[in-house]
Amino acid sequence: MNTSHADAQDYRSWLAVAVAEARAGAAEGGVPIGAALVGGDGEILGRGRNRRVQDGDPAAHGETCAFRDAGRQPSYAATTMVTTLSPCWFCSGLVRQFGIGRLVVGEVRNFHGAHEWLAEHGVEVIVLDDAECVRMMSEFIAEKPRLWHEDIGE
Amino acid sequence: MNTSHADAQDYRSWLAVAVAEARAGAAEGGVPIGAALVGGDGEILGRGRNRRVQDGDPAAHGETCAFRDAGRQPSYAATTMVTTLSPCWFCSGLVRQFGIGRLVVGEVRNFHGAHEWLAEHGVEVIVLDDAECVRMMSEFIAEKPRLWHEDIGE
Repeated sequence: MNTSHADAQDYRSWLAVAVAEARAGAAEGGVPIGAALVGGDGEILGRGRNRRVQDGDPAAHGETCAFRDAGRQPSYAATTMVTTLSPCWFCSGLVRQFGIGRLVVGEVRNFHGAHEWLAEHGVEVIVLDDAECVRMMSEFIAEKPRLWHEDIGE
Repeated sequence: MNTSHADAQDYRSWLAVAVAEARAGAAEGGVPIGAALVGGDGEILGRGRNRRVQDGDPAAHGETCAFRDAGRQPSYAATTMVTTLSPCWFCSGLVRQFGIGRLVVGEVRNFHGAHEWLAEHGVEVIVLDDAECVRMMSEFIAEKPRLWHEDIGE
């Protein structure tokens, strides 16, 4: 593990960035999932939110947008992907392929993605079970189930 | 399996689209990997090439670009992802998450991605072992090893 030391307070402050992105997405009528890519010194390298609706882009998940926003990086070992929701196979594949060292997840109740698969493959995984993340996603799924199912290919 | 019937000649003609994309990428100084997303009737829904160098976008793999180019689709079960090279975890995660029914791969010699993992999870996988795909990628890796390793996070 090459990730730097970080504590629960760091995780919460990073998650706040992802939650702000998710809220902005909700206000735009989009899928309310946000993410941030955090560097080894705790700096925000990139941030983003799901933009399926806003851009008509089915590959624009929160995690992929945060990753793109960070631009080309020489290494991802010391970075942390922070996301409001358990990452799908697409976004988990991103974390694994690029060797992102740590994953911080807001919640895994509304969608059980591949965070356990990443943990099995050496990624440090922290699940925060954040009440605000759960609430945001629950409301969205109840209001727009078809959009949600489209976003995860179901 | 919901993919439509297709034969070796179809696979070769689809691969030609991906190869044309890869060649265009090489001419631009980029990573020469191309892809196409093909619909159930054999129509090209989207096509693209790796654009890491061209756009400074580390998420712009051939497969993700072809997927984006196709826009939002109601279902991917009948579609085929065609790519010049075995897909990495990121692009394999894309195929699995969205339920793309079939994967046609130009070659797996220069990079052994997760095509077998996809086959284990129900995707119909065809490896063509195409000599032109092998040659293009071999030359690229020999000429620009650092760029190649950056592209796969190594």
